[in-house]
Amino acid sequence: MKFEVTILGSSSATPIFNRNPSAQVLNVNERLFLIDCGEGTQQQLLKNGIKAQRLNHIFISHLHGDHYLGLVGLLSSLHLYGRTRPMYVFGPPELKEILDIQFKYSQTELRYPLEFYATQAEKNELIYENPDIRIETFPLEHRIPCTGFRFNQKKRLPKIIKEKVEELGIPIEMIPLIKRGIDFTDKKGVVHAAAELTQEADPPRSYAYCSDTICNWKYIDQIQGVSTLYHEATFMHDMSTRAAETFHTTSLEAAQIAAKAGAEQLLLGHFSARYRELEPLQEEARTVFANAKLALEGHTFAV
Amino acid sequence: MKFEVTILGSSSATPIFNRNPSAQVLNVNERLFLIDCGEGTQQQLLKNGIKAQRLNHIFISHLHGDHYLGLVGLLSSLHLYGRTRPMYVFGPPELKEILDIQFKYSQTELRYPLEFYATQAEKNELIYENPDIRIETFPLEHRIPCTGFRFNQKKRLPKIIKEKVEELGIPIEMIPLIKRGIDFTDKKGVVHAAAELTQEADPPRSYAYCSDTICNWKYIDQIQGVSTLYHEATFMHDMSTRAAETFHTTSLEAAQIAAKAGAEQLLLGHFSARYRELEPLQEEARTVFANAKLALEGHTFAV
Repeated sequence: MKFEVTILGSSSATPIFNRNPSAQVLNVNERLFLIDCGEGTQQQLLKNGIKAQRLNHIFISHLHGDHYLGLVGLLSSLHLYGRTRPMYVFGPPELKEILDIQFKYSQTELRYPLEFYATQAEKNELIYENPDIRIETFPLEHRIPCTGFRFNQKKRLPKIIKEKVEELGIPIEMIPLIKRGIDFTDKKGVVHAAAELTQEADPPRSYAYCSDTICNWKYIDQIQGVSTLYHEATFMHDMSTRAAETFHTTSLEAAQIAAKAGAEQLLLGHFSARYRELEPLQEEARTVFANAKLALEGHTFAV
Repeated sequence: MKFEVTILGSSSATPIFNRNPSAQVLNVNERLFLIDCGEGTQQQLLKNGIKAQRLNHIFISHLHGDHYLGLVGLLSSLHLYGRTRPMYVFGPPELKEILDIQFKYSQTELRYPLEFYATQAEKNELIYENPDIRIETFPLEHRIPCTGFRFNQKKRLPKIIKEKVEELGIPIEMIPLIKRGIDFTDKKGVVHAAAELTQEADPPRSYAYCSDTICNWKYIDQIQGVSTLYHEATFMHDMSTRAAETFHTTSLEAAQIAAKAGAEQLLLGHFSARYRELEPLQEEARTVFANAKLALEGHTFAV
């Protein structure tokens, strides 16, 4: 099952040429989830060959412009494309007001239903569930209310052992039943226990998105054991005072959090425009957490 | 005196890779005026080496997203850059509400004064004046209220004849006075009439911006005799029905308007994403108006 993230933007608020503000697309079993939607996200989708029409769920962490200013344009374009399927938008309650006023004054009556779910910045919450995944929010600590998102793959059914299918001539329509624990009786009347025909599925994987936040460790429980952690790393650690003042995290702190959470992989992002070269941020993080990578635009990472 | 326009974006609402929505910078004697501010304008300014800090006046024609969605990001970045000088924004009254709500929820208290001037879509109005230029609005006819802008260079003082300066040894501090009509008495006591020392200034030039509008000829008086006309040409003329339905203009119609207005130069823009190649729009316009050009991004045109 595919579970990967493509970075569309990982720059912080001040613009820098050829880097884009926060946006990324999570592909979970070919369902696409857009996380944050900074200005220019539409162009970034086009550039990366991702059809905006495939999106059905959009998650906005908070109401700083570099995380949501591309949303009205994207939603308007989907309207112009003639979309009729609903779009589900999850974000701070005030986002609805911001969207409504702009559609009102542009006299845009969306051709598709816009289903808005107000997130709660002060507590953990399960906000979405489908057969593959559960999505939870948790509080981050930034200058304004901000939520993190955690995407948890569900425990999957065991996998059928291919050799057994051939050996016993198991009909294809039996396979889903066997996975659910029903024993198989072959043509000779011999019963084969489901447990002998299957093996454990791969353990569920998970992805957490933490941008923007001061490094205060309060959300460490919410990201515990995550497979891949995207964490903001706006500054290098020599600017830790500035990071704290602006409620941001340093690259070193992001690595410490990843280590403490027992993450397998750390993606660093939300880079300040002061850094023309980003490798030093990666090097700094790797002094603490070896599997730290830069969330560079256009790159796709398996979760 | 410099009077030129640089195109930052000339695409219409539906996004297309590597083309940007409406935005352009008019340079009048090194004062920069931003006209419309579609999503991604900040990036386009960076790409074209135009410092956003040099902008003091922004003009928004109407509240369709492809004409203003880059504004909150741009104004926020100027705040982050530490700007203290006022920024003057001219646009539909509801734009103020759209800006205010977003600054409110992002808890952004701009470090600089934002001076907002509500334009009136139903009548002509002088909205700005400085020693070089007068800026007027006039009504266009679109799906929502929309104004055109006309930038009129003021009649300039006559030019001093350089040969006379040398011949008569005219001191440099006398030149502005002579331009204002004060005669010059040389060392021998001979009086030289100001009129003999000067020649007529170049005739004042003007720039008109018409996007978006149906072709209804009602604004022809307002653009009469304009030096350079920027006019939307969303479609080619084989789509004139669709153009009228959507309150847009075809390339042929834009050329007819330029001809009727007696413009010297026509810049075509606001191209539909359906046109991958834009030259046919230029060719169509040139069948009626020879000096028609595509307002391509990154190009600068003398007004």
